[in-house]
Amino acid sequence: MCRWAAYLGEEVFLEDIVTAPCHSLIAQSHCAQEAKSPTNGDGFGLAWYGGRAEPGLYRDILPAWSDPNLKSLCRQIRSGLFLAHVRASTGGATSRANCHPFVSGRWAFMHNGQIGGFERIRRALEATLPDALYDQLEGTTDSELFFHLMIDEGLDDDPQGALERATARVVSAARRAGIDPALKLTAAFSDGETLFAVRYATDATAPTLYTSSFRDGTGRCIVSEPFDRENAEWQPVPPSSFVVMTRADIVIRPFAPVSERRPVAAE
Amino acid sequence: MCRWAAYLGEEVFLEDIVTAPCHSLIAQSHCAQEAKSPTNGDGFGLAWYGGRAEPGLYRDILPAWSDPNLKSLCRQIRSGLFLAHVRASTGGATSRANCHPFVSGRWAFMHNGQIGGFERIRRALEATLPDALYDQLEGTTDSELFFHLMIDEGLDDDPQGALERATARVVSAARRAGIDPALKLTAAFSDGETLFAVRYATDATAPTLYTSSFRDGTGRCIVSEPFDRENAEWQPVPPSSFVVMTRADIVIRPFAPVSERRPVAAE
Amino acid sequence: MCRWAAYLGEEVFLEDIVTAPCHSLIAQSHCAQEAKSPTNGDGFGLAWYGGRAEPGLYRDILPAWSDPNLKSLCRQIRSGLFLAHVRASTGGATSRANCHPFVSGRWAFMHNGQIGGFERIRRALEATLPDALYDQLEGTTDSELFFHLMIDEGLDDDPQGALERATARVVSAARRAGIDPALKLTAAFSDGETLFAVRYATDATAPTLYTSSFRDGTGRCIVSEPFDRENAEWQPVPPSSFVVMTRADIVIRPFAPVSERRPVAAE
Amino acid sequence: MCRWAAYLGEEVFLEDIVTAPCHSLIAQSHCAQEAKSPTNGDGFGLAWYGGRAEPGLYRDILPAWSDPNLKSLCRQIRSGLFLAHVRASTGGATSRANCHPFVSGRWAFMHNGQIGGFERIRRALEATLPDALYDQLEGTTDSELFFHLMIDEGLDDDPQGALERATARVVSAARRAGIDPALKLTAAFSDGETLFAVRYATDATAPTLYTSSFRDGTGRCIVSEPFDRENAEWQPVPPSSFVVMTRADIVIRPFAPVSERRPVAAE
Repeated sequence: MCRWAAYLGEEVFLEDIVTAPCHSLIAQSHCAQEAKSPTNGDGFGLAWYGGRAEPGLYRDILPAWSDPNLKSLCRQIRSGLFLAHVRASTGGATSRANCHPFVSGRWAFMHNGQIGGFERIRRALEATLPDALYDQLEGTTDSELFFHLMIDEGLDDDPQGALERATARVVSAARRAGIDPALKLTAAFSDGETLFAVRYATDATAPTLYTSSFRDGTGRCIVSEPFDRENAEWQPVPPSSFVVMTRADIVIRPFAPVSERRPVAAE
Repeated sequence: MCRWAAYLGEEVFLEDIVTAPCHSLIAQSHCAQEAKSPTNGDGFGLAWYGGRAEPGLYRDILPAWSDPNLKSLCRQIRSGLFLAHVRASTGGATSRANCHPFVSGRWAFMHNGQIGGFERIRRALEATLPDALYDQLEGTTDSELFFHLMIDEGLDDDPQGALERATARVVSAARRAGIDPALKLTAAFSDGETLFAVRYATDATAPTLYTSSFRDGTGRCIVSEPFDRENAEWQPVPPSSFVVMTRADIVIRPFAPVSERRPVAAE
Repeated sequence: MCRWAAYLGEEVFLEDIVTAPCHSLIAQSHCAQEAKSPTNGDGFGLAWYGGRAEPGLYRDILPAWSDPNLKSLCRQIRSGLFLAHVRASTGGATSRANCHPFVSGRWAFMHNGQIGGFERIRRALEATLPDALYDQLEGTTDSELFFHLMIDEGLDDDPQGALERATARVVSAARRAGIDPALKLTAAFSDGETLFAVRYATDATAPTLYTSSFRDGTGRCIVSEPFDRENAEWQPVPPSSFVVMTRADIVIRPFAPVSERRPVAAE
Repeated sequence: MCRWAAYLGEEVFLEDIVTAPCHSLIAQSHCAQEAKSPTNGDGFGLAWYGGRAEPGLYRDILPAWSDPNLKSLCRQIRSGLFLAHVRASTGGATSRANCHPFVSGRWAFMHNGQIGGFERIRRALEATLPDALYDQLEGTTDSELFFHLMIDEGLDDDPQGALERATARVVSAARRAGIDPALKLTAAFSDGETLFAVRYATDATAPTLYTSSFRDGTGRCIVSEPFDRENAEWQPVPPSSFVVMTRADIVIRPFAPVSERRPVAAE
């Protein structure tokens, strides 16, 4: 289980979200309060949008709390849209390629949760990827593979649909392998314009997700747990929700993977 | 506050102490039970004696739990005398040079605790070192400096006396700087023959220290907290104790720094 | 192109081969003389056999010349059979999982050379691996995949045959992909008893390979380039050779991959 | 000997200077042409000015050529004033704290060259620093210490004078230690407004220094060796020069350390 935070709005210094708040992501790397494990020390990452369509990416394998580069970058860089993540490995090695966010073109993606039984369905899922996407895989995590399933399902044109179909592909692969689907998926992703998020699990315990306005509504945050108990008005997002956050507003819709509606023979 | 373990006896694989036990040092790097902070993720280190008078040294800045090299080294290397440490920084940066154990010639040293107010007396303490020892300093920790004070006080000829006089130098420097001495010192060190340890604090809360026989008495351990609740018979070492462990026996003496007995004007 | 050295014989300190000689592997990481690129600064690795059937493994991503752990480990560890490697990446990222040697069970493998056009045949080659071997892949290099092809071809029972058949699989995959086979393969591998090596290329320029006795014949070395011009009597190994080195003797045979002898329809 | 590049002018992406040119700093980390050693693989660093008075700082110990974070940061970050450095150690360990640039408040400093015989005068030089500056030292390099000597000599009010007096302090310390002064000093530093540089040596071989306009004069570069042979008009800076570069113009003055003009009894 990992912790993450994302922001969309007027430009702020990354540190205003990532490192400065009393229960910032850095603090959560040491002492998360709503996660299964309090320590998220298996690396971290930042993806932020700026002068290009593609985000900048900074990831490293130290615990977030002990990286002076992270502190300095967050203090110096301003952005109106960014994603930040601290990792608690559920399996993959501690390497930069296994740290979130993952980036492909203008898209960035980060994930709290896991694909249960991943080692038993990984190869089958990989086999469904076209060569171009398969060759983009740099690490060995379930999260990176899931992101590429989303791309393959049409992330550019239909983010929620792509996410639902990717979820269905995982569920279907688990069933084919004779195991119970066990996906936990609290994730955020962006194309550089809109910030999307999801809270979902195949069981009753989807990892937490919260939204809040930031600085009198000039920005909005979406996080796996609140980084500040005093100043913000955190709204829990219910399970099985899909969040679409723009500079104008925030819409929360039901998230219903295809697998729950119909057989997924189409894959 | 850090965690450490040391062993003296018949050759064992390092993993028998460092990584394999249920509450091994690796487990303690994640979830220490008797330390002020449960996480000891700011690097780690091993010093082990083998075919040379000087110990081998392996230190790195990752958390111990996520370093595959550490696991492999501990699985492959056998030694009859070694020291292992996981670090929770009380100030110094996370760098290899700040990881314990520290090595000088045939001596290795590691420490749980800290010199309170170190930033206010560091330079004065450094100034008391002769050039040759000063030039050996590689990092910026209170622990490495304390080790070099011990060397300067005659560690080769009188380990306990050197430790007492080094303690007195720290206490004296604090008083000169107008601050209350606040030293916590649970440490182990060795010259490759004998394993020494100390449990001491200038206040009433010296960090814990335990000894135990290992494998029917073919070896002995001394640790900051037990790594195994079932098989070993852990003996707590009382505060203000100095431990001398040889292959033949273990002697525990009172530890009374010079500063508590007489003024330390000589420094 | 990388540099490597392997040793079999009476126990020596690793430093006698790896770090101490005037043109040691460490020196070669800075200034190789017979390699395409003089700098081999993209990580390094050691695999050494000792008290277990499986080798110990130490790999890191720093240049070999700047890693104090490597120096200390080589100074302290003694072994009668070990492999050491400094890497110059031909493509894969600089990560520990991409550093040689690679280890599987009691086998260790390291490689100088590359599979030309690897990005165009990687997925087809991976698809030929059974699940158990596929799941062992930790990195993204051609070398690690080639090693697992060897295992799949029966490395345990027939090392030279397995190597020939793995080579044929690569050649065949290239042809199927419509590209000219371009394999450069100067490699060493061991099961903890015997040290094997190969010098081969699909074109006329196989990377160099040398053998030498060490310390009056109490040991033997096999290396990609000599580490010492004065004391050793280096024997170049001719291209298309397979070397079998035991504690008793050294045998050099012709190396003729199956692909050069007959169609490889069997795959 | 290291390589560095600095830029002042209209905002550009860092990659336009640091990573994209044919003989960029990244290329120079592998194959410098005018340096004593072609490889500058002992870490790297960036300091760039943006929305704050103090610069952002990113340093790491990998070779610049193998760090994907560096590439992404340079691609995403825009700045009108920045310093970039690739390191070839002349002694200090490969650690982040020993990588250039060094930062203190709004000042950033980076250096190609060395203080000859540093190990014999280091402690004497450190002893001349006031506590506040001494406590700022994080690493063990001659360069970081020299930067703090400059601060102590009044860098804020008189950059050239501070540099001259710091040089004199080094020369004087060498003479007092009975060794010939041997300082090589090709350095750049900035307060966030003006970009200063120096080319100086106590002997006849000061490391090279070049300036050039960039993009039709909307910016200017100052570098240890040209990164682009075709488009830029590189002007070599003569030895014993001090360079003051502003957005308006560039002034080159003679650099004459105090030690060459009068006794330095004042220290």
